[in-house]
Amino acid sequence: MAKTLTPDIDAKRLYASIRELGKIGAYRDERTGLVGVNRLALSSADGEGRRLVVKWFKQAGLEVRVDRIGNVYGRREGLEPGLRPVMAGSHIDSVPTAGAFDGCLGVLGALEVARALNDHKVATRRPFIAAFFTEEEGCRFGVDMLGSAVATGRIRLEDAYVLKDQAGLSVKEELGKIGFLGSNPVRAILPHAYVECHIEQGPILKRTGMDLGVVSGVQAISWFEGVILGRSCHAGTTPMGYRRDAGVAAAKLNLKLRDWTRSGLFGRDFRATMGVLRPHPGMVNVVPGRLACSVDLRNPADSMMRRAEKALFVHSKKVEKEEGVSIRWRRTAGTPAIRFDPSVRELIDEMAEGMGLKRGRILSGAGHDAQEWSRLCKTAMIFVPGEYDGISHNPREFSTPKQCADGVRCLLRTVLALSQEGGR
Amino acid sequence: MAKTLTPDIDAKRLYASIRELGKIGAYRDERTGLVGVNRLALSSADGEGRRLVVKWFKQAGLEVRVDRIGNVYGRREGLEPGLRPVMAGSHIDSVPTAGAFDGCLGVLGALEVARALNDHKVATRRPFIAAFFTEEEGCRFGVDMLGSAVATGRIRLEDAYVLKDQAGLSVKEELGKIGFLGSNPVRAILPHAYVECHIEQGPILKRTGMDLGVVSGVQAISWFEGVILGRSCHAGTTPMGYRRDAGVAAAKLNLKLRDWTRSGLFGRDFRATMGVLRPHPGMVNVVPGRLACSVDLRNPADSMMRRAEKALFVHSKKVEKEEGVSIRWRRTAGTPAIRFDPSVRELIDEMAEGMGLKRGRILSGAGHDAQEWSRLCKTAMIFVPGEYDGISHNPREFSTPKQCADGVRCLLRTVLALSQEGGR
Repeated sequence: MAKTLTPDIDAKRLYASIRELGKIGAYRDERTGLVGVNRLALSSADGEGRRLVVKWFKQAGLEVRVDRIGNVYGRREGLEPGLRPVMAGSHIDSVPTAGAFDGCLGVLGALEVARALNDHKVATRRPFIAAFFTEEEGCRFGVDMLGSAVATGRIRLEDAYVLKDQAGLSVKEELGKIGFLGSNPVRAILPHAYVECHIEQGPILKRTGMDLGVVSGVQAISWFEGVILGRSCHAGTTPMGYRRDAGVAAAKLNLKLRDWTRSGLFGRDFRATMGVLRPHPGMVNVVPGRLACSVDLRNPADSMMRRAEKALFVHSKKVEKEEGVSIRWRRTAGTPAIRFDPSVRELIDEMAEGMGLKRGRILSGAGHDAQEWSRLCKTAMIFVPGEYDGISHNPREFSTPKQCADGVRCLLRTVLALSQEGGR
Repeated sequence: MAKTLTPDIDAKRLYASIRELGKIGAYRDERTGLVGVNRLALSSADGEGRRLVVKWFKQAGLEVRVDRIGNVYGRREGLEPGLRPVMAGSHIDSVPTAGAFDGCLGVLGALEVARALNDHKVATRRPFIAAFFTEEEGCRFGVDMLGSAVATGRIRLEDAYVLKDQAGLSVKEELGKIGFLGSNPVRAILPHAYVECHIEQGPILKRTGMDLGVVSGVQAISWFEGVILGRSCHAGTTPMGYRRDAGVAAAKLNLKLRDWTRSGLFGRDFRATMGVLRPHPGMVNVVPGRLACSVDLRNPADSMMRRAEKALFVHSKKVEKEEGVSIRWRRTAGTPAIRFDPSVRELIDEMAEGMGLKRGRILSGAGHDAQEWSRLCKTAMIFVPGEYDGISHNPREFSTPKQCADGVRCLLRTVLALSQEGGR
């Protein structure tokens, strides 16, 4: 095994590839002057990006297959082709106001793993697959991790095909339009292990001085849309005692959520956010009679999440009474907590230790393709720190060449170790 | 004086006139099916409404004059034409989603006073003027009580002329377009007294079982636009301790305002409203990094208002520290408290008592033309209760024929008494 640790990545080539892919869908933000990336899933920019990555896959000697949901797999054969492959990947679709790193680091990192193996003429026991998956962001068709969810059986292909974007265009049509409606079956890949390298998209690694994060799992996520119904009335003529102010009710809920995250009532890592606030009529001199809001809850423990959700409903009843409003909640997302495989996490930690990196155990706050693959095979993730408090989904998103190289070097070593493992 | 109390209004004619004028600019609200009124100042609908009222003024024998800001005065000569006139009036322009009563009750009430005097062949000592004023709502050109403010000297004619609506059309152009750019000087009217009958636009009279309100004054009004700057970040990946959530900061301010109205710290009648809340980017999984909001403060006492404003600024500093945000406030309106003339209020109360009406002392929460005229002459207002908690600026706005008749009958008696008074 010592011999297989010899190969190394080409950090400059990796970073150049990230920058090159980042030019596709690039735009200049008018307010800040920064250059961002808009490569919405199955858009023509996504098509162009996909063709570039496929070209690179082929140049690296990978055998490229596209499945019926547009996931792209580039296979490097192993010494024992009948063994299950080790897979690394992520996504190249983006939110409309993205940077160049989200997803792309994992895809181009996997490509770099293949390139490095080629450079050093390394033959692995197991096949290796570099992959990217369709519509991870969920920004266009409303379902995130769509491609990997179909590939791993959580979502049926026919249900995915009929999802539509805001213009009424379907996933199937749009796959065809960009030439990525593949012919390979969606559930053909059963990996030995899946490893994904991704930017943290948060401030923890950087603020705690870590070079790399070993991801323990993904938080449970619950989203709710709330409608608070009070009564619109004149801000000047209506005595305070007669009001049913939907804005005040929302403020109470928002601060209660904040209190809960501080008190530790639902665990130390419970997070809660009210990101949407739409009062109606939204005029300076009218008491809001109606308000639409959102609640985003995150919890590493499903049991704590259920308690937090229940507390939200119970507290809403209290606010209804206090403020004379009615509050309706509709669940718009709910995924359970994921714990990544301890042996793969251990392997990542060991490899990073061998590289002399300071690494932290970290929980993923966002959803990733890895959580889908974790249903089929042992899975873990490597997080790379981000500058500017790890800002992401923003043109300011940035990880240094060294940060990216550390993550992908660790990915290479982990893939190498996994690809020598026995079993089926 | 007993003889002058004989004339009475024609309640049916009054109500029919309100209904007739309400047809101009009428629209059907799609959501509720209710018929509302959209007669924005100096719109073609306003022009049509004005021509109808002018026609009625002339039919009632009033001598009509239009001044340079489009205010319309219909004069009924007195026995002593050299004495200052008694004036009653209000406005017929509306917000875009109005009912038929706001303003119109006062204008058509003044018309009904003239008609009743005619019917009963009453000659008054002083001249009587029925009037309506331009752009009371301030919805189109951004300055409320515009016509009466120009007529009473608070705003200069040339400054009013150049005010523009959102389409860039000026007051002067639009006055010309509807044929109401009059030639009479704007500061020619100096009344002996001004009395305005208006719907309450609030729930107090109805809830306290009153037939009529004797208005003691108008609250001081302060409006602020606030911008709270925090930092947008990912709701899943950003630990609570790292957040600078503009939405949480707004919630704290909103609840503090509420607390102050309850504690009586700034007087028993202090009112505060946060009607605008615009978080950015306003997405379920993004912590709001910026939030625009409004604060509407009302207080019957100017000194208390100043203390409340100061407290808002001081508390904002506290929230800035607690939440790591910065908060900027910009004043967008500020009018001092008005106390109406005690002798006219007393007269109104006496007349209402003579009619056997239950009347309450009430403070106006909204601005009215009367507050402008109160600078020039003794002034007071009569409030008429509204159904549905006095909802206004809404197609549901409704006062019964009896409620309207009580108010205008009291107006007639008050005008009669004032028009017999001595002095200049």
